[in-house]
Amino acid sequence: MSYATQKLAEEKVFKDPVHRYIHVRDQVIWDLVNSREFQRLRRIKQLGTSYLVFHGAEHSRFSHSLGVYEIVRRISDDIFHGRPEWDEDERLVVLCAALLHDLGHGPFSHSFEKVFHVDHEEFTREILLGDTEVNQILLKVGEEFPKKVAEVIAKTYANKQVVSLISSQIDADRMDYLQRDAYYTGVSYGHFDMERILRVMRPVDDQVVIKSSGMHAVEDYIMSRYQMYWQVYFHPVARSAEVILRKILQRAKELSENGYKFKQPPTHFMAFFDRSFTLKDYLALDEGVLMTYFQLWMTERDPILSDLSDRFVNRRLFQYVDFDPGKDYRKLGELAQLFREAGIDPEYYLIDDSTSDLPYDFYRPGEEEERLPIHLLMPSGEIKELSRQSQIVDAISGKRRTDYKLYFPAELLIDGKKKASKQKILELLRKGGV
Amino acid sequence: MSYATQKLAEEKVFKDPVHRYIHVRDQVIWDLVNSREFQRLRRIKQLGTSYLVFHGAEHSRFSHSLGVYEIVRRISDDIFHGRPEWDEDERLVVLCAALLHDLGHGPFSHSFEKVFHVDHEEFTREILLGDTEVNQILLKVGEEFPKKVAEVIAKTYANKQVVSLISSQIDADRMDYLQRDAYYTGVSYGHFDMERILRVMRPVDDQVVIKSSGMHAVEDYIMSRYQMYWQVYFHPVARSAEVILRKILQRAKELSENGYKFKQPPTHFMAFFDRSFTLKDYLALDEGVLMTYFQLWMTERDPILSDLSDRFVNRRLFQYVDFDPGKDYRKLGELAQLFREAGIDPEYYLIDDSTSDLPYDFYRPGEEEERLPIHLLMPSGEIKELSRQSQIVDAISGKRRTDYKLYFPAELLIDGKKKASKQKILELLRKGGV
Amino acid sequence: MSYATQKLAEEKVFKDPVHRYIHVRDQVIWDLVNSREFQRLRRIKQLGTSYLVFHGAEHSRFSHSLGVYEIVRRISDDIFHGRPEWDEDERLVVLCAALLHDLGHGPFSHSFEKVFHVDHEEFTREILLGDTEVNQILLKVGEEFPKKVAEVIAKTYANKQVVSLISSQIDADRMDYLQRDAYYTGVSYGHFDMERILRVMRPVDDQVVIKSSGMHAVEDYIMSRYQMYWQVYFHPVARSAEVILRKILQRAKELSENGYKFKQPPTHFMAFFDRSFTLKDYLALDEGVLMTYFQLWMTERDPILSDLSDRFVNRRLFQYVDFDPGKDYRKLGELAQLFREAGIDPEYYLIDDSTSDLPYDFYRPGEEEERLPIHLLMPSGEIKELSRQSQIVDAISGKRRTDYKLYFPAELLIDGKKKASKQKILELLRKGGV
Amino acid sequence: MSYATQKLAEEKVFKDPVHRYIHVRDQVIWDLVNSREFQRLRRIKQLGTSYLVFHGAEHSRFSHSLGVYEIVRRISDDIFHGRPEWDEDERLVVLCAALLHDLGHGPFSHSFEKVFHVDHEEFTREILLGDTEVNQILLKVGEEFPKKVAEVIAKTYANKQVVSLISSQIDADRMDYLQRDAYYTGVSYGHFDMERILRVMRPVDDQVVIKSSGMHAVEDYIMSRYQMYWQVYFHPVARSAEVILRKILQRAKELSENGYKFKQPPTHFMAFFDRSFTLKDYLALDEGVLMTYFQLWMTERDPILSDLSDRFVNRRLFQYVDFDPGKDYRKLGELAQLFREAGIDPEYYLIDDSTSDLPYDFYRPGEEEERLPIHLLMPSGEIKELSRQSQIVDAISGKRRTDYKLYFPAELLIDGKKKASKQKILELLRKGGV
Repeated sequence: MSYATQKLAEEKVFKDPVHRYIHVRDQVIWDLVNSREFQRLRRIKQLGTSYLVFHGAEHSRFSHSLGVYEIVRRISDDIFHGRPEWDEDERLVVLCAALLHDLGHGPFSHSFEKVFHVDHEEFTREILLGDTEVNQILLKVGEEFPKKVAEVIAKTYANKQVVSLISSQIDADRMDYLQRDAYYTGVSYGHFDMERILRVMRPVDDQVVIKSSGMHAVEDYIMSRYQMYWQVYFHPVARSAEVILRKILQRAKELSENGYKFKQPPTHFMAFFDRSFTLKDYLALDEGVLMTYFQLWMTERDPILSDLSDRFVNRRLFQYVDFDPGKDYRKLGELAQLFREAGIDPEYYLIDDSTSDLPYDFYRPGEEEERLPIHLLMPSGEIKELSRQSQIVDAISGKRRTDYKLYFPAELLIDGKKKASKQKILELLRKGGV
Repeated sequence: MSYATQKLAEEKVFKDPVHRYIHVRDQVIWDLVNSREFQRLRRIKQLGTSYLVFHGAEHSRFSHSLGVYEIVRRISDDIFHGRPEWDEDERLVVLCAALLHDLGHGPFSHSFEKVFHVDHEEFTREILLGDTEVNQILLKVGEEFPKKVAEVIAKTYANKQVVSLISSQIDADRMDYLQRDAYYTGVSYGHFDMERILRVMRPVDDQVVIKSSGMHAVEDYIMSRYQMYWQVYFHPVARSAEVILRKILQRAKELSENGYKFKQPPTHFMAFFDRSFTLKDYLALDEGVLMTYFQLWMTERDPILSDLSDRFVNRRLFQYVDFDPGKDYRKLGELAQLFREAGIDPEYYLIDDSTSDLPYDFYRPGEEEERLPIHLLMPSGEIKELSRQSQIVDAISGKRRTDYKLYFPAELLIDGKKKASKQKILELLRKGGV
Repeated sequence: MSYATQKLAEEKVFKDPVHRYIHVRDQVIWDLVNSREFQRLRRIKQLGTSYLVFHGAEHSRFSHSLGVYEIVRRISDDIFHGRPEWDEDERLVVLCAALLHDLGHGPFSHSFEKVFHVDHEEFTREILLGDTEVNQILLKVGEEFPKKVAEVIAKTYANKQVVSLISSQIDADRMDYLQRDAYYTGVSYGHFDMERILRVMRPVDDQVVIKSSGMHAVEDYIMSRYQMYWQVYFHPVARSAEVILRKILQRAKELSENGYKFKQPPTHFMAFFDRSFTLKDYLALDEGVLMTYFQLWMTERDPILSDLSDRFVNRRLFQYVDFDPGKDYRKLGELAQLFREAGIDPEYYLIDDSTSDLPYDFYRPGEEEERLPIHLLMPSGEIKELSRQSQIVDAISGKRRTDYKLYFPAELLIDGKKKASKQKILELLRKGGV
Repeated sequence: MSYATQKLAEEKVFKDPVHRYIHVRDQVIWDLVNSREFQRLRRIKQLGTSYLVFHGAEHSRFSHSLGVYEIVRRISDDIFHGRPEWDEDERLVVLCAALLHDLGHGPFSHSFEKVFHVDHEEFTREILLGDTEVNQILLKVGEEFPKKVAEVIAKTYANKQVVSLISSQIDADRMDYLQRDAYYTGVSYGHFDMERILRVMRPVDDQVVIKSSGMHAVEDYIMSRYQMYWQVYFHPVARSAEVILRKILQRAKELSENGYKFKQPPTHFMAFFDRSFTLKDYLALDEGVLMTYFQLWMTERDPILSDLSDRFVNRRLFQYVDFDPGKDYRKLGELAQLFREAGIDPEYYLIDDSTSDLPYDFYRPGEEEERLPIHLLMPSGEIKELSRQSQIVDAISGKRRTDYKLYFPAELLIDGKKKASKQKILELLRKGGV
């Protein structure tokens, strides 16, 4: 028997709070789960800094990855199995892609990527194709297999049915994370009838469509996503922690570039500071490692690095106000000037941050929208784009919503020194706009 | 207004998956939650190594501590409030004790304590009474207040009603962790009707009793506990990880004592190796820090330290067989000898481990049993010990169950070298008993 | 102590799947629950014929009424209690109104009211003010008390805070039925964070508003309502059963008026056929009584009455097609003619039915819209109508959606007789439109 | 294609709160569900009078029957399918037996059977084999098929694997009703990990066993059953209603036998009073019919019939005290005498009732115990009876627990007439024992 079709002597199951059980019968999947690159995902939180707002959200990318795999396994083995439009040969490649789609994520990915100009998708590719345990396992299936898996994840794979199970506007990735993040945060959003959606998915031509009888379940899913984005993922307090995190990394980098002598040398970061990093350097990082440094840096002599580190570790976050980048752009300059006068470096203590979301879209001009639209299969056999059938989805489709905030350390503005400048700052912040 | 009675301008709530919301109105509680010693609990998992078996169990002691606080708050504010037997002056001390009862836990407490002969309860006491933010906050309530809180946690406090809310056979601690651990692992055990139990709790004399109409809910709770212990807390695979963890710490200590030159000096551990540690050293540790070391030690020259570290980090655990310490004691000696012959150090690679539980007891000879028994308040006003009323509880009460396992690296026993000895080992392991 | 303030010796609780427990401390409430008029609600299903589609939906108006009471009790006792804008004197009147608001509902209200031109709200009023146990109990509170309760239910009560707890676009009635109907049908819609909504409700001036921080929970509630309406309440198969039910009653009435001699005389209905009914006649009816008649009528000689009765009892429902009343009006006439030609009475076997909903509205031109709009209390203290703040609600507000269907007995159209006419009927039904 | 293997063009699903969805693909099953005998189960409550205590428990035997079918379908199609020990030919017979196993239940079966000396199992057999729609459908599968289904339900079928799926100590019947009744009552008992149990069921030789790795899930199931029995099924207030119900039927029968002239002739009951009933008479009854009579009988001249009917309809139940039949037998005689002296007929107003349960048993002397014991399949291949492996089950196995109560109308004992006798009655009732 070839490695590709090799089954475990007995099915393995993982107890999972979201899907009850995750089932593994393929030797390949079992070996991938046990690889060191996959086990590393246990050390990276699924929701980054959100646990500082929703204390239950301490779950890792490991759990999520298993969940995405399980959803795809059910689609492939229970729903699509035996349908003429579905190519059984794709089964293993889509299972592996589902399991491994987040493999390149690093600690607090969002902030880390911004400061060090790296890209987790690029790392995913490197882990799949480079010198790793995962690559060794995939190669055993076939010489071209690692590349195929990488293509599915990169959305360049020829079979678009396969791609859309992992990356579309209603894919296994989103269906798992919405439910999982709702479960762990404890919020009441994030519920939708996934059972129903799975049951009405159909492979046709170059896509996966939804039988129109399941339209309301899809509406519910889109509303869940909308609510989760604004209630959980974009929570301004979690963003405050992200802002501080970014500034810690930026400060450490700046200090290093300027020849600052660290009491606790940032060994793990050096290759990122000077951009000489390899995949190995990247894989040596995780959130425990970063937190270990931040705790050490709390006693660094540089007051900015030590203060920011203390803020992050002990959750002494920045306050925020709404901010309108169009109207308030000039005020931001003024504020920066006043911060400097008050002896507070605006580069590290006055930060504007924005986030935005497009709840659903049917065309695809930019980044988020690259995901494929949702198509309904009508009883007549016709295929229609969702927002043409759903009043609710039509109402919100294509409407980007952006939220701007200005972050700053409120308690520094009320202590005794430089009273006049601080007074002016507080007035400006209180006023409409900023 | 005194600090003790100071209320927040607006009630704060934490979204919690187990209790829906956790409510804070007292300034003292709010300040304690924000102290650095309490925030540190975010970096220590509630269930130690169990996440290596139940991948969802990544929740921290921070969540659990909030949960215990919330249960006690509800008992105090909703159930006991206004009852003549309940002393309202105890409200704040019991809330603080509930919140802070686990404050002294360190990373992977169980193993850490065994190797370094420390005691998390002693550290809890030190944090409450020593030079900490928590102590500063408690002192603001009153000079004797930190001591009172410490006494409640140490079970030496005069008012036994207060003690039993935190430490009895049906206390807020257990009620939270059973439900919380069930929620995060996803197992179906751990459910019982806490609403009902809370509603039938009554303060009387020197204890808290349960109205007999709630007996069946209590039976259910005891069965939940029984199942959680054997299905989750004592899971042999999680214990395998604990065994390895212990051996890593033991090896590092031994190497350090023998003057081994670490490539990655174990700075954080030095004070524990030579027993010169202070509270500050202890508080500098957390599970991220330990994992950071283990990852570094994967490349140490000492083959045992590097191998064990790799096993823990990448979840390459020991296998196990049942083991009867009475019958198999001689075999254990034989096995150790054979391990040595096969070139495998039995001190680090052949480990017997046992665990045991007493599901419920009404007397109190030893450690676990120190917890107070459960008393029912009969309609007649009489008070009866639970196991005399409940057939189910009577059936299991006082019956200690112990599980013995022998752990070893199965895959090392099948490779090519020293075949004869390994053959004999495998035979011995396969045979009855070991 | 007056009857109005009399408390039970011990709080009574009802186990409730939706709210966990329903708590009763007031003697008045307890007595009302035990009155014969309230117990009668056990014999009337909350969702009429929906159980023929969702087999779990067999719950009664009794459960729902308790649920509405419990929500209002929590608002009154936990959320509003102590707020200066809330008049404690209203507590008992609002609790009673909540409990009794559906008291006048009869068996399969919707159809029954249509055929016999009665109004359940009028019966509610009669039960409150007429010669009933409920009236006796309310009178014990005060001479004006029954009238007050009736006014709250009729929305004419002076204190609009009280009215809006029972009848607004986000009242206790809706909050209970959405959750309860979702629970019993088993659908995944109907979930929203009621805890959160209750916590942000505030009495102000002549209304109850929602703190703007709870806006997203309200959005979720409105979406739940939208989904429940279209997925459950307006389900075309349940409407098919309603159509048949209506036609049974209409036929029995017609037969009676024409002097038809029933084998099983419709004693319970006579007063409704000739419009001589009293409240007592109405209260003698329930769904068990109606079903008993329908089963007897299955053997009546009149073929229409017996056939329709058999259809309803044994769930042999009509089929349906979409129908556009504008476009297809002429076709409907043609179809009726063809039905007659085929020997099938279109009056009883070709029925057009429509239903419509307005998910949310801020003005109030007509019936459904009479309910008060939802107002948000902004942090500034300003009050804003919901749809101006919520993109989602704005998108659907004021947009009435109507669904038209044409019902008919499909299996009668394929049997052997009058083939030509039936052929034409089927062609017409298959064509676009009808 | 034969009728036995005929599949629906598209799978039908029923939304079910307990199992999410119930799936039907077989034409036979679909036809059976739509038969009039099966639809009749909608008009019979699963839990009889329990809804008078747990208001949510208004669900019917229809829902339960679908649930049992779904569990057996999953075992047959997902777990046993393809295993050599399982005979695929049994699939349809076991599905039909699962669906139809409760078909002979009548209104308030328990009381009805006692008074009229009928047996619902006998009626099930008659419906399967007599002149019914169900029989017609089963006959289309094969001439012997109805008999086979009847044998499975009667436990006389040769293939014991099939029998034990429907009737053993861990069968689909119990697994459905425990979960379903817990769901509808809202109690927190009744939860166990059915997923896990299903996954570890194995057909071997002449039985179905449980892999020993699932033992703890089975323990949980047995505890659930134990709690449901005592908390829900044997609730003394529901039994009070049963007692009254029984006495209504007994009184009506007695009156009829004595030539009493009913204002409302008990047409539906006549054939049962004189034991001339046919299956058709039985099928004409349901709980709506009985309730219709009870409401009519509230105005009968016979004071006992009218009073008892009013009590049942309007939930004016009897009170109860514990009663020890050994010790208190003499007192019961005394009480009866005193009741007579007080002018209250003890035959109808002083009723002793007992109920008992055997939580689990491994042998089978009597009625309940006929159910097969639970056997575990050990890793060694050996088969062991559950109570030998499980400490918990051993503790409760074979221990019958019986509860005796004495029911009476408390409020009649405190009114003015015959004071002395009533005084003595109350004293006797208050005393220990009775």
